[in-house]
Amino acid sequence: MDTIKTLMEHRSIRKYKNTPIPENILKQILEASFRASTTGNMQVYSIIVSQEKEMRKKLWELHFKQDMILQAPVTLTFCADFNRFNKWCKQRKAEPGYDNFLSFFTAAIDALLAAQNCAIAAESFGLGICYLGTVTYMSDKIAELLKCPEGVVPVATLVVGYPDESPELTDRLPYKGIVHHETYHDYSEDDINEIYREKEALPQTAELLRVNELETLAQIFAQKRYAKKDNVFFSKQFLKVIKDKGFMNND
Amino acid sequence: MDTIKTLMEHRSIRKYKNTPIPENILKQILEASFRASTTGNMQVYSIIVSQEKEMRKKLWELHFKQDMILQAPVTLTFCADFNRFNKWCKQRKAEPGYDNFLSFFTAAIDALLAAQNCAIAAESFGLGICYLGTVTYMSDKIAELLKCPEGVVPVATLVVGYPDESPELTDRLPYKGIVHHETYHDYSEDDINEIYREKEALPQTAELLRVNELETLAQIFAQKRYAKKDNVFFSKQFLKVIKDKGFMNND
Repeated sequence: MDTIKTLMEHRSIRKYKNTPIPENILKQILEASFRASTTGNMQVYSIIVSQEKEMRKKLWELHFKQDMILQAPVTLTFCADFNRFNKWCKQRKAEPGYDNFLSFFTAAIDALLAAQNCAIAAESFGLGICYLGTVTYMSDKIAELLKCPEGVVPVATLVVGYPDESPELTDRLPYKGIVHHETYHDYSEDDINEIYREKEALPQTAELLRVNELETLAQIFAQKRYAKKDNVFFSKQFLKVIKDKGFMNND
Repeated sequence: MDTIKTLMEHRSIRKYKNTPIPENILKQILEASFRASTTGNMQVYSIIVSQEKEMRKKLWELHFKQDMILQAPVTLTFCADFNRFNKWCKQRKAEPGYDNFLSFFTAAIDALLAAQNCAIAAESFGLGICYLGTVTYMSDKIAELLKCPEGVVPVATLVVGYPDESPELTDRLPYKGIVHHETYHDYSEDDINEIYREKEALPQTAELLRVNELETLAQIFAQKRYAKKDNVFFSKQFLKVIKDKGFMNND
């Protein structure tokens, strides 16, 4: 499938058939993810493939019971991983210095770029994907379930399977809402009104406001979907797993 | 161009022609990047396009004088950005709760997935790209140069231009070095030897060892390229810019 077409037609799929993914296709998708850029070609990430029903059931519990995990045949957990690299260093008379925040972030970038390659490759085979944002909320518990050792932190989760729905493309902010030339041009009140106008005018926004009994779409985000108290709680949890996995020795 | 082919043929380009990128192609690339998944479709990232010579010269200084920035016509800086979303919330009677680490990481994920879409789209048009890892080292200075306000942190930089070299595909670790089934299977000493064997046997590895007068490739990484003292120094800097931009109120 044409690359730009694949990219432009992405939609997250939230209903899946239970059709298995042929092994050779899954392999090609994973191998396409390996080709993503990584810092210094260190490839400091790992991909954990969950296919067994029992394991997906446990992941489903941890990911706030999102049924996509039970429907789709494969869940992929992308982890920042310096464990393998550290072991290699130690076996080769080199002292690894990767127990700090920069190294965590470097490894997270590797994992995320690989994940996006994986998503695109899957879509090019007619598969659907959805990222599960719950992975960063529950990274500590997911790490425990998947037996991640020191140096390994889950940072992205993809469900992959054959779509059982054909959703419309979702809205995006206009070009001028995202792109800045030469320097960041901060937004005036009018800019903000213009950038969010289309999103606010969507029929589904009206429906959301009705169901949630709120006045603005921003309130639905800030009060319901991504509320401060949850963000603060999960910030602590996520920082804790980063520390517990040995990435916070910054002195 | 076929998607899998685009993904499988990626190589980072480090020499560029100064041929400009036609405006309509640059626009298509950026628009392809907007289609990447983002948390809750919030699109909490911005892309800063640097094309002016003077600006690229300043970026070149900050990015450790990597000449790619001077050669290629476009440098793109992808920023985690809650500034726009926060302003929208405030204009819509909603109290944003995004001044914490989880929100930073959420926004960084958005920025990185968009960056990878951008890289792939560019390559599908015959352009070359290279990620500059220096962005996380110098994020504070780059933010200052690009006038990033509170809520905005540079997390990925891509140079984009027409390639002036045709490098070979670089090596990757074997499948079993990256992929785990059901749970993370930690590596034995033999596993590590096997996983890194091919990389260690490359002719360029022999050359690197000779030039650096070191015994193992791992020592080149751990002592020269990505040494502990640098990682620790840049960890502090990066955590500081995350805090300075208002993302460390986790209580």
